[in-house]
Amino acid sequence: MPDSSKSNPFRFTLRVYWEDTDAGGVVFYANYLKFFERARTEWLRSFGFAQETLRLDEKLIFMVTETSLRYLAPARLDDELAVTVEVRHAGRATLDLAQQAWRRHVGRNAEQLLAEGTVRIACVDAGTYRPRRIPNFLAQALAR
Amino acid sequence: MPDSSKSNPFRFTLRVYWEDTDAGGVVFYANYLKFFERARTEWLRSFGFAQETLRLDEKLIFMVTETSLRYLAPARLDDELAVTVEVRHAGRATLDLAQQAWRRHVGRNAEQLLAEGTVRIACVDAGTYRPRRIPNFLAQALAR
Amino acid sequence: MPDSSKSNPFRFTLRVYWEDTDAGGVVFYANYLKFFERARTEWLRSFGFAQETLRLDEKLIFMVTETSLRYLAPARLDDELAVTVEVRHAGRATLDLAQQAWRRHVGRNAEQLLAEGTVRIACVDAGTYRPRRIPNFLAQALAR
Amino acid sequence: MPDSSKSNPFRFTLRVYWEDTDAGGVVFYANYLKFFERARTEWLRSFGFAQETLRLDEKLIFMVTETSLRYLAPARLDDELAVTVEVRHAGRATLDLAQQAWRRHVGRNAEQLLAEGTVRIACVDAGTYRPRRIPNFLAQALAR
Repeated sequence: MPDSSKSNPFRFTLRVYWEDTDAGGVVFYANYLKFFERARTEWLRSFGFAQETLRLDEKLIFMVTETSLRYLAPARLDDELAVTVEVRHAGRATLDLAQQAWRRHVGRNAEQLLAEGTVRIACVDAGTYRPRRIPNFLAQALAR
Repeated sequence: MPDSSKSNPFRFTLRVYWEDTDAGGVVFYANYLKFFERARTEWLRSFGFAQETLRLDEKLIFMVTETSLRYLAPARLDDELAVTVEVRHAGRATLDLAQQAWRRHVGRNAEQLLAEGTVRIACVDAGTYRPRRIPNFLAQALAR
Repeated sequence: MPDSSKSNPFRFTLRVYWEDTDAGGVVFYANYLKFFERARTEWLRSFGFAQETLRLDEKLIFMVTETSLRYLAPARLDDELAVTVEVRHAGRATLDLAQQAWRRHVGRNAEQLLAEGTVRIACVDAGTYRPRRIPNFLAQALAR
Repeated sequence: MPDSSKSNPFRFTLRVYWEDTDAGGVVFYANYLKFFERARTEWLRSFGFAQETLRLDEKLIFMVTETSLRYLAPARLDDELAVTVEVRHAGRATLDLAQQAWRRHVGRNAEQLLAEGTVRIACVDAGTYRPRRIPNFLAQALAR
């Protein structure tokens, strides 16, 4: 029986614009971190959590503490990308997320994996930036 | 009789992410130029014109030669913006576009104008960057 | 007798890196706003004013409220640019600054003007973002 | 006897500007990749190699294929950072570089490590983007 939770990670689609490219004619590699961030933001929103609300109401910020990416193939202007988010490991105060960026299927071309990696985010107090436990309501929702 | 062409400019919506903000807690003003660019790209696409295709097939690039913007009110993380595009003046080789960025209606709050301005784009040869006449098929489509 | 105040505006030099370019092979036009900002920051610092200190000690932020730029010639990777700052008009709560970006002289090539324009910055309260008068010590220093 | 080659890595200094920060009040983590890139560019230039010249004369581009970073402490507006570059491993067609970003000593405060990690760059043909051997003149210079 297939594990549907693994085969269907959260997907966020975006378009490549001029601002994302560099003089090599392709997406500047640092911008994949932005794409991954957008996907994580929409992934949280898909559970009903807006980061600005979490900051104001729960005094909670998710900070990125580690990123590890491999850049496999270039994306170009006008490409449509799909960025995935999956929980790899959920700790008391941190989450390890696996993320991938795919060029979406166009015409006869299959989807192509462009970049992938892991991002660790830590739950911190919005005032002191000290680590704090991920609230139960969040941990339970994200673990589903 | 209402002028429907003016009352219904092209609208492109986008979300404000961490990457767009600065230490003032609001969207970094230079990023409105990126938002305006995304809207122009999707405005062209709404007529069936992808810029990468125009570059490869027609050897044509639209270059930004002038921008004039006023920043009226701040946008914040998670805000949803609508960016408009309207042709103000169509020349032989240039287009003057009027653009606005609005914070979209949320709850009881009305839409709010955040930034507005004009952008001049010039049609240039993709190889030499020399000005060239906007092709008829483009000029006619965009003038509709 | 030459007007030395006009002939010697403040100059800040910077290098063009990959991050500044786009798929056209040149500096992305929106990035001139970043270059102009860096030059204004160093111009303020040349008078002894660090913006973070002004924010914390004087509860004062300079906000950009208008930008008007013309992009005349492209800058490329590895180019060294000089960005100038001159006070065009000093109001009670705003400053209008004229700024230019030049490609610096290399080998036999003369300096070339790449972009120019005006930027209006407004003095606002760091908490409320309400306009406030530019403090005398600042106004007097910048007017020199 | 101390190993001076390790104790004195290449150092590049830069200033934190508004463009580098996010709504958390600190440098946006993705921007450390830009800072690391600037340092690598100046590290190559310190050996006499400008990337634009390598691309045009040697048909050679260094592409980033992997990045792995840890973000340890936040940098803020006006901070002055020092970014280091050291060769960790030199392969036939790739270089693994260790890089760190430090907040420079100000007043009584010691230098503080803000971010560190490794970046793999691959030598590729400027036309085909195929991997190619790092030319001897480059390999020998960088190995010193």
